[in-house]
Amino acid sequence: MRDAYHEELDGLSDRLVEMTRLVRSAMARATTALLDADLRLAEEVISADEQVNKIDNEIEEVVFELMARQQPVAGDLRTVVTALRMSGDLERMGDLAVHLAKTARRRHPESAIPPELQATVLEMGQIAERMIAKAGSVIASQNVELGLELDADDDAMDRLHRKLFDQLLAPTWKYGVEPAVDISLAGRYFERYADHAVHVAENVVYLVTGRRPDELINP
Amino acid sequence: MRDAYHEELDGLSDRLVEMTRLVRSAMARATTALLDADLRLAEEVISADEQVNKIDNEIEEVVFELMARQQPVAGDLRTVVTALRMSGDLERMGDLAVHLAKTARRRHPESAIPPELQATVLEMGQIAERMIAKAGSVIASQNVELGLELDADDDAMDRLHRKLFDQLLAPTWKYGVEPAVDISLAGRYFERYADHAVHVAENVVYLVTGRRPDELINP
Repeated sequence: MRDAYHEELDGLSDRLVEMTRLVRSAMARATTALLDADLRLAEEVISADEQVNKIDNEIEEVVFELMARQQPVAGDLRTVVTALRMSGDLERMGDLAVHLAKTARRRHPESAIPPELQATVLEMGQIAERMIAKAGSVIASQNVELGLELDADDDAMDRLHRKLFDQLLAPTWKYGVEPAVDISLAGRYFERYADHAVHVAENVVYLVTGRRPDELINP
Repeated sequence: MRDAYHEELDGLSDRLVEMTRLVRSAMARATTALLDADLRLAEEVISADEQVNKIDNEIEEVVFELMARQQPVAGDLRTVVTALRMSGDLERMGDLAVHLAKTARRRHPESAIPPELQATVLEMGQIAERMIAKAGSVIASQNVELGLELDADDDAMDRLHRKLFDQLLAPTWKYGVEPAVDISLAGRYFERYADHAVHVAENVVYLVTGRRPDELINP
């Protein structure tokens, strides 16, 4: 039987996985809200973020309580400190989905994304979702191989991000300044979301192997 | 006489203060590079960021080594974990200054900031500098009063950020899409830099008082 202390460590991991589910759902709904000018979905994303922040605060409390009470030694200590970091990343990912949702809400009843850019933004949202789903599996399974896949996903996100800029800076752009500003900021939110997902997975890889992902890919 | 362990804790604080100096200098130079289209300054900011990343990595190593070797108890443990968080914030602030510098470099020999917006951007840079200078003093002195000042600075930054958007979305805007995109992203970088400075100071306030700044301001 596990002792209470190790149950608390497992509980941290479960809470982190729950956060990945919440910020994945937030990203899925925020992307649809942006593309379809869906005000109801946008409002849902904005109000659901409270739950993400709540878990982030709970993780912080549990970590500092564990550290004070149990004085965990090296390996476990690294685990709890890393949980704190991952929680911070996931909390930011929730905020970024909220930023996307607020853009959708501000432009409603129009869509913030003109027809020519819908495919690019849809793909950015799908990659973001895939990345956080993988990051969640990596936390739950400690699967290093899967963790290393996120770098390639991030490269795909960066390519789409550049494509988005190319499209809105093209001479054929006919929607003026305000949509261009919204879309450039939205592009940045997707890209940062992906960076945080990579960071979450990296932290697991480092915990499991003691090595940074770049050392494992280019040994 | 201080023992080696407490000297290492003090060393962490010194390293964090050094990071605040570096990212302050980066912000000052990046703002000037943006306003004056100064390519040399922009390149300096970009290459100097390596030093910030180096200290961030050193802090991480020292923290995990301290935790493994000394098994610090509650208070000290909280101190070292918080150092790790502040180091992460400061590292991001360096990145944000680099983003501003890269914008300046990409637009060179033109300035990325049209004459009408120069005063606003200059003020954003000055507030950012003031905030990181205060955050550095807060780390060095543990001055809670000073730490609480950063919220007001952050409000000032948010007002300037909104003003910047109002200016570039005004019907009189005559510079087209590309400068608007650059400036909206630059505005976001200044605003995020300020958020991280607030976060650094908040961490010190919490370490010293055990309470979050909002509990102290609205008790």
